[in-house]
Amino acid sequence: MNQTVNQIPPYRWAKRARDSVAPEGGTTSGGDLIELGGGFDFPDALPDIVSEAMAAAELRSETLQYGPLYGLNDLRDAVAEYLRQDGIAATRENILVVNGAKHGLDLACRVFLEPEDPVIVAAPTYLMAAKILRHAEASFVSIPQDEEGMDTEVLRDRLQARQDAGESMPKLLYDMPDFHNPTGIPMSAVRRRRLVDLATQYDFVIIEDDPYRRIRFEGEAVPPIKAFDESGRVIGLGTISKILAPGLRIGWVNADPAIVRRIAAHKSDGGSCPLLQRIVVQLLRNRKMDQHVATLISLLRVHRNAMIDAIHEHLPDTLVRVPNGGYFLWVRLPPGIDADELVRRAAKEGVSIISGRLCFAEEPPGSFLRLAYSFSTPADIVEGVKRLGRAYASIRSELETSINRIVRS
Amino acid sequence: MNQTVNQIPPYRWAKRARDSVAPEGGTTSGGDLIELGGGFDFPDALPDIVSEAMAAAELRSETLQYGPLYGLNDLRDAVAEYLRQDGIAATRENILVVNGAKHGLDLACRVFLEPEDPVIVAAPTYLMAAKILRHAEASFVSIPQDEEGMDTEVLRDRLQARQDAGESMPKLLYDMPDFHNPTGIPMSAVRRRRLVDLATQYDFVIIEDDPYRRIRFEGEAVPPIKAFDESGRVIGLGTISKILAPGLRIGWVNADPAIVRRIAAHKSDGGSCPLLQRIVVQLLRNRKMDQHVATLISLLRVHRNAMIDAIHEHLPDTLVRVPNGGYFLWVRLPPGIDADELVRRAAKEGVSIISGRLCFAEEPPGSFLRLAYSFSTPADIVEGVKRLGRAYASIRSELETSINRIVRS
Repeated sequence: MNQTVNQIPPYRWAKRARDSVAPEGGTTSGGDLIELGGGFDFPDALPDIVSEAMAAAELRSETLQYGPLYGLNDLRDAVAEYLRQDGIAATRENILVVNGAKHGLDLACRVFLEPEDPVIVAAPTYLMAAKILRHAEASFVSIPQDEEGMDTEVLRDRLQARQDAGESMPKLLYDMPDFHNPTGIPMSAVRRRRLVDLATQYDFVIIEDDPYRRIRFEGEAVPPIKAFDESGRVIGLGTISKILAPGLRIGWVNADPAIVRRIAAHKSDGGSCPLLQRIVVQLLRNRKMDQHVATLISLLRVHRNAMIDAIHEHLPDTLVRVPNGGYFLWVRLPPGIDADELVRRAAKEGVSIISGRLCFAEEPPGSFLRLAYSFSTPADIVEGVKRLGRAYASIRSELETSINRIVRS
Repeated sequence: MNQTVNQIPPYRWAKRARDSVAPEGGTTSGGDLIELGGGFDFPDALPDIVSEAMAAAELRSETLQYGPLYGLNDLRDAVAEYLRQDGIAATRENILVVNGAKHGLDLACRVFLEPEDPVIVAAPTYLMAAKILRHAEASFVSIPQDEEGMDTEVLRDRLQARQDAGESMPKLLYDMPDFHNPTGIPMSAVRRRRLVDLATQYDFVIIEDDPYRRIRFEGEAVPPIKAFDESGRVIGLGTISKILAPGLRIGWVNADPAIVRRIAAHKSDGGSCPLLQRIVVQLLRNRKMDQHVATLISLLRVHRNAMIDAIHEHLPDTLVRVPNGGYFLWVRLPPGIDADELVRRAAKEGVSIISGRLCFAEEPPGSFLRLAYSFSTPADIVEGVKRLGRAYASIRSELETSINRIVRS
């Protein structure tokens, strides 16, 4: 039957689907591969939810039936309470339950974007967000980051220049202000406020994706962008993936009720699973989530430190930023080292990593790696970075040889 | 904060979102309303999945972690086996796990449709499918049904006329051949084969949505359309909503692997929940699903009979088709009775029903109701139809009065 699909001629696929084919599934990666690529949760810390799963399964008429479009009211209330701890004035009608934050972004794209509409993103940005925006056929306005987060002065200049030139103005800005994926940078309070002002002035909506806020090893939090929002122009995206378990696929949209109702109209999935929602309500209420986050922080701090030390030892001449939270390290490679080639060689050495290229919506300004310290044990992290170091050394020595050859010839 | 969203000017919303606002959520309908509208499962028959939920929750490193993009291999294998029972040559690589059949349709739209692309649907068709297609900005080619299902000769004529006129040709056909929602009509084997031939001849893809196939009270099944497919042009959509529990939100796409990989690329939800998938694998393997389907059939046959009898008693001069399976009755109202007005009056009498208008992608050719016998008990069904009868009688008596007035004047 396999040859038959060639009978579907290329013009039958939608434009957005023509070059977008997922890799084959069904096989798991080789036994000895160390995972430093994906933002998986640390398996040893996954919470025990057996009693909550039992209790939820017993509430059959709620949990096995179609759920309400907006989510269980108990969960909407619990999420609103969770957000109020961060200074966000949320109540039930601000909350739409979705199947993870990515689902929320996808829905927001449907409600705001036509093909070619410009969207503001940081450079770099979250790789899956870039993919979702690309599938929505957005065009990009990439704004650099510094140690305070997205550079709002560059953003203002770009917006003003577009307005002066009569170009189409961005409808959305997507960013992750707390422990940004991939850089780990937290946005300063000044910049957050400034973003909200720019949103009002230049008429765009801010999507604030905030999965890592609670995974903080050091330092003090600043309020979410949404806490500075008086205009209703900020849409918060949240998820339990990093504070409970990514497999449960429960997230939320936090927005003005009029936005929530438009997004809900495009949620054609028959309601998020009420069994999972009821499990999450219990885990929020019985404080298991808070305990889990505390455990995770103490473990992942050790992971981060192990990875930083290993990078200093095995990846000479790279630049790595030490984040105060989140799951990732962002590594700048020296000139001449191609990140994609390094990823390929690292896989051969037995370690899986992510090329920084995937974290840019447009052309990357340099060569970077994203390394996750969340999933593997400290011992595996050290071994993984060692393997990465071998791949790195092999590229560097070839580079030196070829430079020497050029110099000599 | 509520006034603020008016600050988002209308041109900022995407076209597809401008007139699409979900009703307010958070409130449940009044205590005494009898539900004959939505296709909910019968609450008394929802299966006991407590032991499966416990066992799945214990497999933490699988079930609480991000799941594989295509779904758990065990579930893909179990679904393929389930489909092979119906004569479909499916294996693991044909199956993509999704969050219900609606999710599968939504993904297929992304992969095939550009705005304005024509899609073939039956008249009437599944109301949520019409909504999803509308959100994909499809245009419609509506084809009438008779007792053998979608009229393939009308379809052929319409296709040929479009081709002769040089009009854009449909990319997709959507239909539900077994116990069609809302009409309950099963498509004949001859028509199924003919559809596949037309798909090849006129270069479109068939989406076969098949939730009700196993809910058969009488008669013999014919093979699914997919079983006639030798061209790879049929995409099967399945779900456990009607054979296990709608709340679990697990469905599948069954297609040529090349189509599956393109659809998977647009599945940006972080993988369907592996906890739910593991629960479903167990329920398929331990035969609880088969037992559940057998129970459901014997219960819903009684529901259907109760509703048919009540309609004959309380809705004189209507036409109702007796289906051999599925969840719904399709009722044709006499001329002059507006279905939307009847829905409003029925709600006041304390019964919730669906206007047939919602089941047409284009202008309805008459006035219809969709009634679900799945959710309410036989006693409630009888009482609900009695209430509906009062609403119906009140409209008819007003109609007669106004006709008499016209005749007399």
